[in-house]
Amino acid sequence: MAHITLTNPNLPGITGLLDYSKVTAVPLLNLAEALLRSDSSLNSAECELIAAHVSYLNDCHFCHTSHAAAAVAHLGCDASLIDDIKENFASTPISPKLRALLDIATKVQIGGKNVLPEDIAKAREHQATDREIHDTVLIASAFCMYNRYVDGLGTWAPQQKEEYLEMGQEMALVGYEAQY
Amino acid sequence: MAHITLTNPNLPGITGLLDYSKVTAVPLLNLAEALLRSDSSLNSAECELIAAHVSYLNDCHFCHTSHAAAAVAHLGCDASLIDDIKENFASTPISPKLRALLDIATKVQIGGKNVLPEDIAKAREHQATDREIHDTVLIASAFCMYNRYVDGLGTWAPQQKEEYLEMGQEMALVGYEAQY
Repeated sequence: MAHITLTNPNLPGITGLLDYSKVTAVPLLNLAEALLRSDSSLNSAECELIAAHVSYLNDCHFCHTSHAAAAVAHLGCDASLIDDIKENFASTPISPKLRALLDIATKVQIGGKNVLPEDIAKAREHQATDREIHDTVLIASAFCMYNRYVDGLGTWAPQQKEEYLEMGQEMALVGYEAQY
Repeated sequence: MAHITLTNPNLPGITGLLDYSKVTAVPLLNLAEALLRSDSSLNSAECELIAAHVSYLNDCHFCHTSHAAAAVAHLGCDASLIDDIKENFASTPISPKLRALLDIATKVQIGGKNVLPEDIAKAREHQATDREIHDTVLIASAFCMYNRYVDGLGTWAPQQKEEYLEMGQEMALVGYEAQY
């Protein structure tokens, strides 16, 4: 049960919080839409993988599983990807560029100052652009917010990964834009 | 020097990043406006103190000093507050309610799951409302994002606190709403 009395306590994870506080829901959703579905640099599958990876590092079950399910929907792959994120993509083939960007995201999750010039240089060696590096750092930073918001207020989350597949489809197909 | 080539490298901290990426600047600024200047629960001085405290814990000099300077402007106090935040408000008189909310923010900075029912109960003992607890958790979470964005991309920041007083005045009086 959440630490505060939500308007609709049946809504899991961040969805109950967005429903509770619409004034903050609008920029939070618009930020997710801009970060995860703009296709200005990284594609949406790559963005969702970064989001899911950081959420796993932050031990946020709801965000890890839902954003991994969105990546599953984008990639048309099977749900084992959700568990493979925990193994640092041991089975899922990812490009050297995405691997280097995930390494930057891992540093950001610990703290911004952990990102060193050599981490940036390694991403550039694999053709990462300034925009891709920018977006990676901001996605990783933003999920350090969303994850803390979800868990800091003690929201509930479905446990089984299969329960997230429909949500992931909707996140991938409909997106995040505020409906308020 | 920032890790990426900014459009205007003379702009310090987050301001250079907002200028570089306007598509993400709009929701980032609208979120700050909703969190720090809505006066729906905590007043703006209290919100800026939570923001500055979390930014100090995240070792983000730009955000700590600029948001502390905004609190100075709201409170009409002197710039010593900026340093006193580092001492956990040893000299600045703050209410028991704000002290309890700052304790929650401190837990959120470490990770969302660190916030325990007893932390919430303590804030409630001092008359904190659900909305105030919600806003505290979201402000603390959001600054875990802004701080990582600023430092993860290696932006520069003025060193002396006196260099932030004018910026703090503007943040307090004009606010954060996107000018794009």
